[in-house]
Amino acid sequence: MSGLKLWDLAGEDPARRFSPYCWRTRMALVHKGLAVETLPWRFTDRAAIAPHTKVPVLEHPGGSLSDSWAIAEWLEESYPARPSLFRGEGGRALSLFVNSFADAMLMGPIARLIVADIPAVLVEHDRAYFHESREARFGMPLAQVSADRETAVVAFRQSLLPLRLVLRQRDWLGGVTPAYADHIVFGCFQWARCVSPFALLAKDDPLYDWRERMLDAYGGLARAVPAFAEA
Amino acid sequence: MSGLKLWDLAGEDPARRFSPYCWRTRMALVHKGLAVETLPWRFTDRAAIAPHTKVPVLEHPGGSLSDSWAIAEWLEESYPARPSLFRGEGGRALSLFVNSFADAMLMGPIARLIVADIPAVLVEHDRAYFHESREARFGMPLAQVSADRETAVVAFRQSLLPLRLVLRQRDWLGGVTPAYADHIVFGCFQWARCVSPFALLAKDDPLYDWRERMLDAYGGLARAVPAFAEA
Repeated sequence: MSGLKLWDLAGEDPARRFSPYCWRTRMALVHKGLAVETLPWRFTDRAAIAPHTKVPVLEHPGGSLSDSWAIAEWLEESYPARPSLFRGEGGRALSLFVNSFADAMLMGPIARLIVADIPAVLVEHDRAYFHESREARFGMPLAQVSADRETAVVAFRQSLLPLRLVLRQRDWLGGVTPAYADHIVFGCFQWARCVSPFALLAKDDPLYDWRERMLDAYGGLARAVPAFAEA
Repeated sequence: MSGLKLWDLAGEDPARRFSPYCWRTRMALVHKGLAVETLPWRFTDRAAIAPHTKVPVLEHPGGSLSDSWAIAEWLEESYPARPSLFRGEGGRALSLFVNSFADAMLMGPIARLIVADIPAVLVEHDRAYFHESREARFGMPLAQVSADRETAVVAFRQSLLPLRLVLRQRDWLGGVTPAYADHIVFGCFQWARCVSPFALLAKDDPLYDWRERMLDAYGGLARAVPAFAEA
């Protein structure tokens, strides 16, 4: 037993794990071949993860830590003999760039496309918190944020060109098999898949095929969660 | 002697080497500690580099090759005992993503900001070619392409956030010293610096300081070329 536990954002259905950051960590854990007990967590369960304030939170025999990037670095350092998340110092350095690219270029635009679908999958007592906090962030009702998504998705798909140029040539971002760079980007798409029926990717996009490969990777871990069928 | 020669895009002043792709290669060569004879090349010197059609073209004792990414991979494979451009397989894989990011997100926007300044630095017989080919690409006179640059630069600077998030924390993109990922991105800024007085970066941007470090790196190789003083 690894002794690892992960606090993992869940919907009303405790099996619907939909945090993009928790998915980065889930994929990193399975990549390292580490068993983990995942604990469903809701936005309003503040006490459960204190003094941390956001998931993912990883508990291990020596303590606990939060922040998906910090967890990835901790896993790489703590389990050096297991399959590498970064494949060397250069990969580790540039995975931080991929992390920054995902945070700066993917998370915000995807949120705008799918945020209006999220309340429906939340547990009842999370809904008010979610509406209030996200409507404050966007400065408008959630339905209005996502109202133009049929046109907004065109610009979003164009913005994926840096990823597409790689995935036209290669199966994975991080090397000959998936690496943490793939986990980072995949987490963004898995988030959307678990909360929304909206199709982020066109079927003829190399990213669509890459996402399929990620869903099948590691024994189909990511495909097994409740998701909406994509158009 | 390394026996290496690089065909390197030059302006009317043969010392003004301004191709962003040639700068990727120049920085990679100096990173590897390889001496190289650089040969000034102009857009209309087709015969000199045939059968290649674009610079950089690297001549070596066994042949020649073009395309900055292909050259970087060749250098890494041909000189494995010299300082690594990628720092491992993960770094090599993700450097291709950085290459794609630069090509997709930086080259086009920077071109629009500075292209109108380029004809003035070209040798006389390159000017007609440059005007015709670039005006066909943009579908308008070059002066018009760059006319709104004082406002367009705001969006460009915002688009640098993925790089900025890393360079707020670290001195270099690729590791504890510069790597090919830094050379790729730097080439884009060095191109602008060599052809235009327009300030791409604000002085309080972490990218500004990083560019200064790159200009000083490798004995100040990149700072030594004729450039416009930046505001």
